Amino acid sequence: MTHIDLGIDEKQFPGITGLMRYRPETAKPLNELAEVLLRAPHSLPAGERELIAAYVSGRNECDFCCASHSAVAAARLDEGYDLVDQVRADLDTAPISAKLRALLRIAGAVQVSGRDVTAELVADARAQGATDLEIHDTVLIAAAFCMYNRYVDGLATFAPEGRDAYAESARRLVERGYGSTVGARPADEPVA
Amino acid sequence: MTHIDLGIDEKQFPGITGLMRYRPETAKPLNELAEVLLRAPHSLPAGERELIAAYVSGRNECDFCCASHSAVAAARLDEGYDLVDQVRADLDTAPISAKLRALLRIAGAVQVSGRDVTAELVADARAQGATDLEIHDTVLIAAAFCMYNRYVDGLATFAPEGRDAYAESARRLVERGYGSTVGARPADEPVA
Repeated sequence: MTHIDLGIDEKQFPGITGLMRYRPETAKPLNELAEVLLRAPHSLPAGERELIAAYVSGRNECDFCCASHSAVAAARLDEGYDLVDQVRADLDTAPISAKLRALLRIAGAVQVSGRDVTAELVADARAQGATDLEIHDTVLIAAAFCMYNRYVDGLATFAPEGRDAYAESARRLVERGYGSTVGARPADEPVA
Repeated sequence: MTHIDLGIDEKQFPGITGLMRYRPETAKPLNELAEVLLRAPHSLPAGERELIAAYVSGRNECDFCCASHSAVAAARLDEGYDLVDQVRADLDTAPISAKLRALLRIAGAVQVSGRDVTAELVADARAQGATDLEIHDTVLIAAAFCMYNRYVDGLATFAPEGRDAYAESARRLVERGYGSTVGARPADEPVA
């Protein structure tokens, strides 16, 4: 049960969505950050950025965020859940580009500590064609999910079980963006 | 040396300030989040919220964030650096209220993992008078600094040594808010 009274039905607003309804003042920058990092136009496809989010969330054992962003990654990647599962099971053998593998290794280091990101990990990513912006955003996506994961689990929010439970919210996040699952205006939708 | 080329003099823009100049699109929500959590009107004094930030940053061994938020906490608390140092050295014996001690214990749990925040820690904070919003914001401040710390160290930014190096930025953060140290408009300052 959630540690504090959010004043909502947690089955209807699971995970971070209930927290965002409870505290719209912090929901706004949290959604804007996710929009910029995961959905804005970028040289890294949105599916790969969602994969980084799912990978870090899995390593933090955050069931809600991992299931939620695995669903979005699966929806955005041609290979669907197969690829998400392979990356999460064994990064070394998953059928992804050498660049994405190097970026995911950086993300895995960030999950432990910022201090674990070595010059060697960064040099390897660069050797595989990663740009400075891609390295920057990989570090910040991984760091941001170390926040979202702790926020969601630190308040003991409800996480539905099974992939079906995340399909509808994934569809909405892909189509309308972060903020759309809590009833707020998505950052990419005009105000009027 | 910073892992990527930020295109700035890192002595002039150390830690997160250089990263924010490099990527203003993410700087905006990152500064807005800090404004709401650390500076907006609140039942927890700003000095106590900055103390939570400094405490978590110290546990993450993030020199820049710990020095920076210790300086702001010291500037905002009557007891100055003495209290910041005592809390960071030994939370159990530091001369703070039972409520703040209970909230800092929750923050310490979040620093390890969201899953480490137990119902007992939350019940203790509530027994000492903490409100649901104070518990919520403590969890989110701690979680947010697990992000800021990883961002700053994951890209190996420069951290000046010595307290004097943080005095001027602390003064500006107290007076003008987050965003003011990177040349952006602070969230609490009118656009025109």
